[in-house]
Amino acid sequence: MPPSSPLHVVIVGGGFAGLNVAKGLGGVAGVEVTLIDRRNHHLFQPLLYQVATAGLSPAEIAAPIRGLLSRYDNVRVLQGEVTGVDLTTRQVTGSLGDIEYDRLVLAAGAMHSYFGNERWEVFAPGLKTVEQATEIRRRVLEAYEAAEHEDDPDVRRALLTFVVVGGGPTGVEIAGALGEMSRFTLARDFRNIDPALARIVLIEAGDRILASFDPRSSSRATRDLERLGVQVWTRSRVSVVDAEGVEVGAERLAARTVVWAAGVKASEIGEQMSGGAPVERDHQGRVYVGPSLQIPGHPGVFVLGDQAHVEGADGHALPGVAPVAMQQGRYVAQRIRGALKTGADDYPPFVYWDKGQMATIGRSRAVLEAGRVRLGGMFAWLGWLFVHIYYLSGFKNRLFVLLSWAWSYFSFARGARLIIQKRWRSYEDAPEDVHPSADTSP
Amino acid sequence: MPPSSPLHVVIVGGGFAGLNVAKGLGGVAGVEVTLIDRRNHHLFQPLLYQVATAGLSPAEIAAPIRGLLSRYDNVRVLQGEVTGVDLTTRQVTGSLGDIEYDRLVLAAGAMHSYFGNERWEVFAPGLKTVEQATEIRRRVLEAYEAAEHEDDPDVRRALLTFVVVGGGPTGVEIAGALGEMSRFTLARDFRNIDPALARIVLIEAGDRILASFDPRSSSRATRDLERLGVQVWTRSRVSVVDAEGVEVGAERLAARTVVWAAGVKASEIGEQMSGGAPVERDHQGRVYVGPSLQIPGHPGVFVLGDQAHVEGADGHALPGVAPVAMQQGRYVAQRIRGALKTGADDYPPFVYWDKGQMATIGRSRAVLEAGRVRLGGMFAWLGWLFVHIYYLSGFKNRLFVLLSWAWSYFSFARGARLIIQKRWRSYEDAPEDVHPSADTSP
Repeated sequence: MPPSSPLHVVIVGGGFAGLNVAKGLGGVAGVEVTLIDRRNHHLFQPLLYQVATAGLSPAEIAAPIRGLLSRYDNVRVLQGEVTGVDLTTRQVTGSLGDIEYDRLVLAAGAMHSYFGNERWEVFAPGLKTVEQATEIRRRVLEAYEAAEHEDDPDVRRALLTFVVVGGGPTGVEIAGALGEMSRFTLARDFRNIDPALARIVLIEAGDRILASFDPRSSSRATRDLERLGVQVWTRSRVSVVDAEGVEVGAERLAARTVVWAAGVKASEIGEQMSGGAPVERDHQGRVYVGPSLQIPGHPGVFVLGDQAHVEGADGHALPGVAPVAMQQGRYVAQRIRGALKTGADDYPPFVYWDKGQMATIGRSRAVLEAGRVRLGGMFAWLGWLFVHIYYLSGFKNRLFVLLSWAWSYFSFARGARLIIQKRWRSYEDAPEDVHPSADTSP
Repeated sequence: MPPSSPLHVVIVGGGFAGLNVAKGLGGVAGVEVTLIDRRNHHLFQPLLYQVATAGLSPAEIAAPIRGLLSRYDNVRVLQGEVTGVDLTTRQVTGSLGDIEYDRLVLAAGAMHSYFGNERWEVFAPGLKTVEQATEIRRRVLEAYEAAEHEDDPDVRRALLTFVVVGGGPTGVEIAGALGEMSRFTLARDFRNIDPALARIVLIEAGDRILASFDPRSSSRATRDLERLGVQVWTRSRVSVVDAEGVEVGAERLAARTVVWAAGVKASEIGEQMSGGAPVERDHQGRVYVGPSLQIPGHPGVFVLGDQAHVEGADGHALPGVAPVAMQQGRYVAQRIRGALKTGADDYPPFVYWDKGQMATIGRSRAVLEAGRVRLGGMFAWLGWLFVHIYYLSGFKNRLFVLLSWAWSYFSFARGARLIIQKRWRSYEDAPEDVHPSADTSP
């Protein structure tokens, strides 16, 4: 067989899906991989709420993509933004110029959706990036600081009211962590206010929180949240979000800190694909892909993770969780390797192995469901802890998160209580009269 | 003796000086302490260069002031900005309103000075705050990322040239860490560039780097830096700093990343003092204080740390280092306690116990001078390590920094290689049409 030029696989996104494709193709002869991400780091998103609530430092749950893949000589990592895909000429476009591919893997993830009220974002940040997490941390910690020297009781009450919109796992985890922080961590640190009197309200539009869980798990989680002082409002729809708080129906809730955990939409790259057969998307912007995770009519173009609409065994779309993305990443790598070896594209379709779901509530409670097993309380929390530490990428992070948690657990403290200012001066903030070559000061 | 109202001590600044005053007065009967700081955290500044060079996370060298002092019921911590002092009515003014004091301790520290060229700051940030450190980290890491996909060799060279201005301990430590990072940490991670070819230039206006050390220590440090690929330019004065690099005399050095470690000036609070005898300041803005650390003509008003000009035994001003600030803080607390006990203000003057000085160069070298002892190389580095870990405030930080270092040492990796974006959307960035009460979206 004559030597042929290597197969160029371009991966967009270094999340769970993209990273697993790259790892699966690392070191495979005849394959060249280019992974492109806007950020230099892979983020362990399931623990991002711990950064927002000052339990962990950003670096403890993030690792440079470049470092995670440095052992594979055939994998190249580029930091840049992909803005479009030309499916006819087979290239991606963006800040790095045009890059041609033989196989394309789109795994650019999702961001928060405000259901048409995007201007709410400034008042109620979501939780998808490190910057958003440190911004939420800043707002929460500054609210307590401001309350400490506030004389007006109404303003103080608004400062000490924290609203979390959305009762899915992320919302439940943030609310639980906020409850625990006010009850235990901050309790001794203030003189004029009692942090334990902070009001935390979790607002959910549906009948119950954790709707994807068994109703008994929802009840259990609600009780655990209430034990931490969190008020759970179900069947409540937020109609206004502004600098003063939120409105739920006719009721106004004065709150200086609002966190959004209510909805997601897929990355916009799915909208910027041109050429050939039309690309169909669902109402969340996710691209419909077939059982091989390729776009119908576009063989060799895969869409994975939060960006993809893949039907599960029950006919519903697979949820946007880490296990789905990881399994899809490994599958695509295997499929590409298989086709390379046999020369035929007859690899079996993707099947999601559902290992269950879980959500943690504060320092020692969780709900966990796996097959027929349903757990709550301390045992579920230990299970949650084990799974999350096991999956944290990179040895150092795993060890450090374990130590951080162990320390927080036994001391009731939170290690990462830093308020970092919103902005620092940069090139763009330079005064108008500063010009590269005009400066001739002595 | 009839019960009298407690003595109110107001401390401005939660650095090494202010924190030690508060600790020294914590739990003392008859004293109420209010510590005011702009930030919620105490920062271990001697290790800030490790944050800038991705060796440590911000939370590993910072701790909430409130938490450090929570055990003392008579100490109140407020986050706010002090903008002026009225020495006649004995009150401080600022974002928290007017606060009266019986004793005032000014310990607001210093910031970088650009010797009249303040507009250089946007191109060459200094290293005094967590935000500046993460900004420098962002610039350094992004320079490598951009170089990886840059085709123009001139631009690539400018991206991989790092200039550090100022050959004092901070400049030496940053340059050494940058050298080590390019030589060892990043060496394997890139495909198109060789990070080991990065050019790091340390520019010093004086005859030699580390001017406060023995000339033999300066030579040793220069050799150690050169071993890490750092070029040391002495007798070189920077005349221009702009977005393209720096000019040194007639020579232009194209560099996308410039770090400023050349000069400091005291906090501006010293300039905003009114009433009574005039307050004298030196050319760096430091307030001249007498041997009791009080402003002449203003008994009960102390100035400490980087904000104070205190004459040492040799007639020169004491250097702006952590041991001076810590000793002064403890001294003022003792002095106030002593006067409270005896009723007389006859406490002996402040004497600085100089334990020596040190600077580290990369992963395993340092220079250390203590009395007649002069060390270099690995032994000095171990001494440096021991002293810094010993002084790191708070048990957790100490343990974590030790682990972080141990891990970096044996793996040659750097744990905190996160590029965090400069800004995130906030209230102030909200679109004009968003108004708290105008929002009536469904």
